[in-house]
Amino acid sequence: MRISLERDTSRDRRPVYQQIADQIRTQIEAERLTAGSRLPPIRDLARDLGVNRDTVALAYESLATAGMVESAVGRGTFVADTRTGAPPAAAFEPVFSATTDRLMAFERRRPRFGSAESAVPMHALIPNPGLYPAEAFRRALNRALHEGGPGLLLYGSPQGDLSLRRVLAERLGRAGIAVTPAEVVLCHGASQGISLALRLFAAPGDVVAFEEPTYNNVLAAALGLGIESAAIPMRADGMDLGVLERTLARPEVKALYTIPTFHNPMGTTTSLAHRRAVLDAARRHGVPIIEDGYEMDLRFTGRSLPPLAGLDDAGLVVHLFSFSKSLFPGARVGAISARGRTVEALLALKQASDLSDALPIQAALAGFVSSGEYDRHLVRLRRVLRGRRDALLDALAREMPEGTTWTTPEGGYQVWVELPDEIDTRDLLTDAVGAGVLFAPGSQFNHDGRASRCLRLTFAMADAEDLRLGVARLARCVRARLERRPSESAGVHI
Amino acid sequence: MRISLERDTSRDRRPVYQQIADQIRTQIEAERLTAGSRLPPIRDLARDLGVNRDTVALAYESLATAGMVESAVGRGTFVADTRTGAPPAAAFEPVFSATTDRLMAFERRRPRFGSAESAVPMHALIPNPGLYPAEAFRRALNRALHEGGPGLLLYGSPQGDLSLRRVLAERLGRAGIAVTPAEVVLCHGASQGISLALRLFAAPGDVVAFEEPTYNNVLAAALGLGIESAAIPMRADGMDLGVLERTLARPEVKALYTIPTFHNPMGTTTSLAHRRAVLDAARRHGVPIIEDGYEMDLRFTGRSLPPLAGLDDAGLVVHLFSFSKSLFPGARVGAISARGRTVEALLALKQASDLSDALPIQAALAGFVSSGEYDRHLVRLRRVLRGRRDALLDALAREMPEGTTWTTPEGGYQVWVELPDEIDTRDLLTDAVGAGVLFAPGSQFNHDGRASRCLRLTFAMADAEDLRLGVARLARCVRARLERRPSESAGVHI
Repeated sequence: MRISLERDTSRDRRPVYQQIADQIRTQIEAERLTAGSRLPPIRDLARDLGVNRDTVALAYESLATAGMVESAVGRGTFVADTRTGAPPAAAFEPVFSATTDRLMAFERRRPRFGSAESAVPMHALIPNPGLYPAEAFRRALNRALHEGGPGLLLYGSPQGDLSLRRVLAERLGRAGIAVTPAEVVLCHGASQGISLALRLFAAPGDVVAFEEPTYNNVLAAALGLGIESAAIPMRADGMDLGVLERTLARPEVKALYTIPTFHNPMGTTTSLAHRRAVLDAARRHGVPIIEDGYEMDLRFTGRSLPPLAGLDDAGLVVHLFSFSKSLFPGARVGAISARGRTVEALLALKQASDLSDALPIQAALAGFVSSGEYDRHLVRLRRVLRGRRDALLDALAREMPEGTTWTTPEGGYQVWVELPDEIDTRDLLTDAVGAGVLFAPGSQFNHDGRASRCLRLTFAMADAEDLRLGVARLARCVRARLERRPSESAGVHI
Repeated sequence: MRISLERDTSRDRRPVYQQIADQIRTQIEAERLTAGSRLPPIRDLARDLGVNRDTVALAYESLATAGMVESAVGRGTFVADTRTGAPPAAAFEPVFSATTDRLMAFERRRPRFGSAESAVPMHALIPNPGLYPAEAFRRALNRALHEGGPGLLLYGSPQGDLSLRRVLAERLGRAGIAVTPAEVVLCHGASQGISLALRLFAAPGDVVAFEEPTYNNVLAAALGLGIESAAIPMRADGMDLGVLERTLARPEVKALYTIPTFHNPMGTTTSLAHRRAVLDAARRHGVPIIEDGYEMDLRFTGRSLPPLAGLDDAGLVVHLFSFSKSLFPGARVGAISARGRTVEALLALKQASDLSDALPIQAALAGFVSSGEYDRHLVRLRRVLRGRRDALLDALAREMPEGTTWTTPEGGYQVWVELPDEIDTRDLLTDAVGAGVLFAPGSQFNHDGRASRCLRLTFAMADAEDLRLGVARLARCVRARLERRPSESAGVHI
């Protein structure tokens, strides 16, 4: 397979991955590459062409999306069978809805991390599978199906399995959120919970206030629903109360989304006084709050603070819980707590979205939690996280250039790092991929995707030793950038 | 517990269920009913008050939604623990988005079938759990988790498990839809697939064309997304081509949703010539088609027809597949087939909706299908369905009053019945609940919910013997209505 690249964009404006994809496509169409033949492994072609593996991966992906090739895990990428019959004379060019177009543009803006196996993965907020109690869950699931029989394979109610709602209502109660099982609605991961909660209050064209920086997928969810976002800057102890006040006063702002505990991406926890101030502002303006408690079970040090939903005596707060970070994401089980008519509205939205969730998994989780396995798992997990956090903070203190600052999380998986100089951490990521360390650049947590000199490091996937290695690599990349670029102090942003 | 009802609506305008709920609530608040005490069983209270069980069930449900009582399957309904602390001084009254409000109104309009255990269930399109290969699936799931290990509990890709996409691409190919695994997107039941497909093309305020009558949950999905609907009347051999032509010519109509095979609710199958005419109209107007093939694996007689997606050489058709009717609904696995950029758009929407689905269930289904268990199950299921359909059609011919007509499905679970006189089948349902038979009144499949003299009977839950009993009961109710009401010929509607 011969591929030649033109890197001078004045001669060829196509991105490099597109040049690669186009040349492979031409060879397939000319039948120089025939159905079933194997494309070179990504790392080989990347080495031969002198490009990043990510670039080749992207080229293969775009060919796969076009149906030209197929990938098989562990086997490689193959030229797909060409269809029988002639290609269509005039293929239909779909016109997507405006919201879908905006969402696709947002997705294309996401950083690409490539597939370098030796890189230290500090970019993703996905707990390492080595931490999952997979065998215990397999047994719980097998038991649930054995005991539940065929009835467990019916549609569930849109509200979800009662036994799991009971167990969760009891746990939420201990965390300070007094709810009955009838006030808990199970959902397909907290990510579906976010979409449902946004739709409760905001129609397309309405505005929802989000912290900045914030969880990037919640921005994608809003965008895909045609909901506009208003940014409330995060300070060290929580969101800026002045901006909050002005934002909630706008009549088109229909809800406030917040992560007060182990904030994503910052790792910080809003103080009690600040929580009360946020609640008070929301109450005065009559704006409901969507509180994302996705890491609430993961405190490994410090004193617990009541969730907003526990301080709320007016029924302002819709609270989201998730098993994805505290257990594993693959169950796709989250829970929404709400009051009164809000529960009825959630059920209508859930039913119109996908009718119901898979009962076997919910029933298995109910058994897993009520048998004490979940709590035993949490004890182990918190100990691991505490050790990893300490290793990460130590390495940052030892390695990072002077003037770098970072947060000190009391739970969860993430630390937010601010560099001492105006470096766009998207550029830094390109260096870091080459140096064998991955992180999430701050821009991806900004509403408008603008450049940021911050970055998120996670201790979800990597262990203490890898974290030390990763920080050393990162620090070298930062120093190199700082040396290349004289200090500038203008245009600072979080 | 003392409850007194006022049935004269000039004295008390509240519905009866509300009167019951309000009196129980008063007794709870006055602590005459204390936390943990058991409410009378629904059937006892219904008998004592001389009301339908459904009415009492609705009262209990509304108390449960308000957090006043809790229901425990098989144990009854109990007064909930009252909260510690004083009730809120000024409780927040949530303002829902306009689309959510409309959706809630739609949900409240759904017929209520009560919980009479002795009634013959011909109302729901849910296969009887007695037909599920639950044990074989439990083993497949256990095996998948055993082999996949913790990695199967990670987030999946938004596109879903490759092994299942392979298996489905191969099956779809045999059904005439030539797709690669890269052109298949797995989703959380075909119901989520419907929402995703609608969102592909239609933004809030846009219009999507649906058949009338049509699957009621697709109308709910559109409503909840703020998408308007245009109705295309169904004729015996498919949708009205004249109305279709005029509808697709409207620029605000962004897509057409259709169920050409074993139509829900009608059970009919659109002819090949008619399929070509629909495709031709859509191509001329450049309007994409969402083809719902939710029962495609359930043909038990007659000749197979190619799906629209199999006749489409322009890439107009997005095709939905589901395991919910052919296997069981509780897996919540469906699949969308699409081409080119439409796949990219679907992945962006899926990711923004709920990131990914549960891999263990997808991997288990892949094993279940590729081992041949699914096909063996289909052989058994189709034989059962054929027998039930024949029993139902025989009973209709024997029992129903002259002038009644019905459809003859060649697959799936549903028969559409049109009564010889202008009876609102919602009223008939009230009689039928009392007589011990349940059906779906035609109005629920109309876009505007207007009255219909049609009804849908399913042979999903009931066996041949029950079907005969159910039809006999239904026929008695129809005759009674016909005798009460002299024939009128005005105002006929499907």
